Amino acid sequence: MTTLIDGKPGESISILDRGFQYGDGIFETMAVANSEPLLWDRHLHRFLHGTARLSLKAPSVDLLRREAEQVCRGNERGVLKIILTRGITGRGYAPNMDAATTRAVSLLPWPDYPARLRTDGVNVQFCRNLITRHPVLAGLKHLNRLEQVLARMELKNGCTEGLMQDETGHIIEGTMANIFIVSGGALLTPNLEHSGVDGVMRGLVLERARALSMDCRVTELTREIILGADEVFLTNSLIGIWPVRQIESQDYPVGRITKQIQDAIRDAIVAD
Amino acid sequence: MTTLIDGKPGESISILDRGFQYGDGIFETMAVANSEPLLWDRHLHRFLHGTARLSLKAPSVDLLRREAEQVCRGNERGVLKIILTRGITGRGYAPNMDAATTRAVSLLPWPDYPARLRTDGVNVQFCRNLITRHPVLAGLKHLNRLEQVLARMELKNGCTEGLMQDETGHIIEGTMANIFIVSGGALLTPNLEHSGVDGVMRGLVLERARALSMDCRVTELTREIILGADEVFLTNSLIGIWPVRQIESQDYPVGRITKQIQDAIRDAIVAD
Repeated sequence: MTTLIDGKPGESISILDRGFQYGDGIFETMAVANSEPLLWDRHLHRFLHGTARLSLKAPSVDLLRREAEQVCRGNERGVLKIILTRGITGRGYAPNMDAATTRAVSLLPWPDYPARLRTDGVNVQFCRNLITRHPVLAGLKHLNRLEQVLARMELKNGCTEGLMQDETGHIIEGTMANIFIVSGGALLTPNLEHSGVDGVMRGLVLERARALSMDCRVTELTREIILGADEVFLTNSLIGIWPVRQIESQDYPVGRITKQIQDAIRDAIVAD
Repeated sequence: MTTLIDGKPGESISILDRGFQYGDGIFETMAVANSEPLLWDRHLHRFLHGTARLSLKAPSVDLLRREAEQVCRGNERGVLKIILTRGITGRGYAPNMDAATTRAVSLLPWPDYPARLRTDGVNVQFCRNLITRHPVLAGLKHLNRLEQVLARMELKNGCTEGLMQDETGHIIEGTMANIFIVSGGALLTPNLEHSGVDGVMRGLVLERARALSMDCRVTELTREIILGADEVFLTNSLIGIWPVRQIESQDYPVGRITKQIQDAIRDAIVAD
C-alpha cells in the first residue's frame, strides 16, 4: 500500500478523526491500469457531489489528481481509494465547519478476481439485512457501511454477492455492486433516489446502453421481477460486469445483452 | 486526552482499520467523576450487547475495566470513551472473523455544559433529516453516525438539541439524547425497536421512575403528541436530564415530574 495523508506519506490517522468516530466522510474506489485511474472524471464528479451533499470542504481537483498520479505511478494494476473525512473536531456530532478535512489517497493491491467470474458469472442470494432509505445519503459513497457489512456477513458458501432490499421490499443493489436485469428486451436497474450507491459503472452502462439504442429504465425492482428476468448482471468499477448465473434456485444464462454491454464497456475496465 | 489503543498509549490508528473504512464498530461514552466511570455495569452491558449483535469479538470484561481505570485515574471529571472496531482486514466489506479487533479507551475533557441547562432547560427543534429504521442496528451505539451529524448541522441558533423522526413520522430521539414526555401524569418515551440508541440514562430513568410507582410507557410518539405534552426532557449519560423549555414555538415548564426524576438519578451523574 502507498498512501498519502493530506499529501504526506503515512498510514495512520488520529482516533479523533471524524471518519473513525462517526464515519463522517466519503470515499471513492477506482480501478488503476498502467498507472492510470480509470473513469477518473466520473469518480471525481460523484466525489464532488458527495462533498456538496454532506457540506464537506472539497479539496482542489488539481491537488487530488496530482496525489492520485503520485500513488498510482509505476503500478500496472491496482485500486485507487480516496477517503475524505470532516477531520478532527471536538467530541460531539456538531462539526466545526472551519476545521480542515482529512484526505487519504491510497493505492491498494488489485483484487485479482478470477477471470471466469466475467465469463461464466456468479451465484447470488437475497439478504435479510435491509438497506435503509435516507434521501440525503442516498446515492453517496459515504463511510457508514455497517448495513453492507451485515449483509455481506450473511453470504452462504458459493455466493459471491447478496442483494439488499429496503423496507418497502424493493431490491436496491448488491452489497458491493449495482444490479441490472434484462426483461422483455429492456434493460432495467433500480431507482437509487432513496438508498444505494450511485455506481460509476452503473452510470457508464446506462450511457453506453442508450448509445446502443437499448430501452433503458431506472425503475423499481422487486424480488419477483428479478427472479423472472431473462438476464441479470452486476456492475462496479473494479469488477466491470459480472453476469449472474443463479439467484437462490433460479438459473440465468449469460445472455446476449449482457455480453453486448460487456463489450461496450471494455475500454473502461482492467483487462483480465 | 489519554488513550490506550489495544492496551498501549497511542492516539492513532491505521487507515485500514474497519472503523475508519466502514464505521464497522461500536462505542460507549460515559461520565467520569472522581476517577470512576459512572454506570459502568450498564454501559458494559450495552457494549457487550452491541458486540454480540454485530458479531464483534468482545474483549474481556476485566481487561476493559483495567484499561478504563488506567485512563480515568487522577481525573476528577471527564468523559470515558471506548471504541471497538472489527480491526484490519483486506479491502471489501467481508470481515475476517479471525482478525483482532481494535480497542481504543480514551479519557476526554469534561464538556462543562452550563449548569443552567439542568435547572432552566433547553430549546429544541424538529429536524428534517431522518433517522432510519434498521432492526439489527436499532438500539446500538454503533459508529455509523452520519444521520446524527446531518441532523445536528440543521440546528438553529439558540437550539441545543434537535429531534429526529423516522420515515413513518415517529419521533425517535434527539441527535445525542433520548426524549421523555410527561402527559396526563404518565411518563412516555419512544420505542427503540426500529431505530435510535438505547441510552443508558434512559434505562436508568425508566427504572427509577417505575420504582417511584410512576406510570411509564415505551410507546410511539409523534410530533403532535410531543407538542401537546405537559413536560418534556432529554437524557443521556453526560447531561443527565435537561428539561425542555421550548420546541419550535411551544413552551413547557420545568415540571414537577421532571424535577422528581432529576432528584431520583442524582447519584448517577456528575454534579454541577
